[in-house]
Amino acid sequence: MPFSMSGASLPVFEVGLNALSAVLDKAEAFAAAKKIDAAVLLRTRLASDMFDLTRQVQTVTDQVRRGAARLAGVEPPSAEDTETTIEQLKARLAKTMAYLKTLDPKQIDASADREIKFPLGGATGQMKGADYLAYFVLPNYYFHLTAAYAILRHCGVEIGKRDFIGSIPLQRV
Amino acid sequence: MPFSMSGASLPVFEVGLNALSAVLDKAEAFAAAKKIDAAVLLRTRLASDMFDLTRQVQTVTDQVRRGAARLAGVEPPSAEDTETTIEQLKARLAKTMAYLKTLDPKQIDASADREIKFPLGGATGQMKGADYLAYFVLPNYYFHLTAAYAILRHCGVEIGKRDFIGSIPLQRV
Repeated sequence: MPFSMSGASLPVFEVGLNALSAVLDKAEAFAAAKKIDAAVLLRTRLASDMFDLTRQVQTVTDQVRRGAARLAGVEPPSAEDTETTIEQLKARLAKTMAYLKTLDPKQIDASADREIKFPLGGATGQMKGADYLAYFVLPNYYFHLTAAYAILRHCGVEIGKRDFIGSIPLQRV
Repeated sequence: MPFSMSGASLPVFEVGLNALSAVLDKAEAFAAAKKIDAAVLLRTRLASDMFDLTRQVQTVTDQVRRGAARLAGVEPPSAEDTETTIEQLKARLAKTMAYLKTLDPKQIDASADREIKFPLGGATGQMKGADYLAYFVLPNYYFHLTAAYAILRHCGVEIGKRDFIGSIPLQRV
């Protein structure tokens, strides 16, 4: 298997979004067992000026959807931030994974030298595709994925690093 | 610029470690301004069963040093976990960056299909090089990098996403 831009993005995102979906299941089970409203977890943040869990999950999907679309040379679809339950956030993750499957890996692989423009804090950022994936999309993706996970660890949900890493092509020998 | 395993690892790690070093500078300035012992920050954790800041920083360097060495087909050097100050942690980051420069990018690029074995929870994990980078090294690297950053945000250090992302090849147009 050669190392490719599509291979370092599409299936990696799928693993991470599936892992996050399973982590949200554990959050729901935790809330039920502790008899707390799951919405409390969804509104938890690690600092008053950081995103809460809901927004972290929404942002993970935004990073992935927009990043992969721009690399594939297509217009990223918009998404409304209306989720208020774990079930709705899981549906957003599933919808994002379905969208990723509509993208052409070859288009992504052909984007290494293409200049990609994207909104950035009210202005426009521009990077070559390979740089955009390695220095922008992947770090932002993992940032929000980790933040979502860390919020739930902070709340006491019993999850470990394996829940974060997800189902990967690993052999134990 | 083609997308390559060495390009998606070595310079990406350098950007992240430099960014973390600058974040630690801000942590030190924050501690001085608030007249708190910086060691309090270094011992802070987001959950009682998560690593504290010191261990997060140590682990970032472990992931990078070991991951890159294994991809390059050389024995990763060991590191003793003796740091108790921000200055010492910054020295560890600098030492790790210097080590990365000793690795041969061509060796890393040639590792996509090579089976890589590595210690994993008392056993041995095995993955092809491309998978090891995309599904193991990068996620673990970003996990601990984000956790270190999030601990300091949680403590009130004034840092933002740009401090996490670091100095990247981005144009504003």
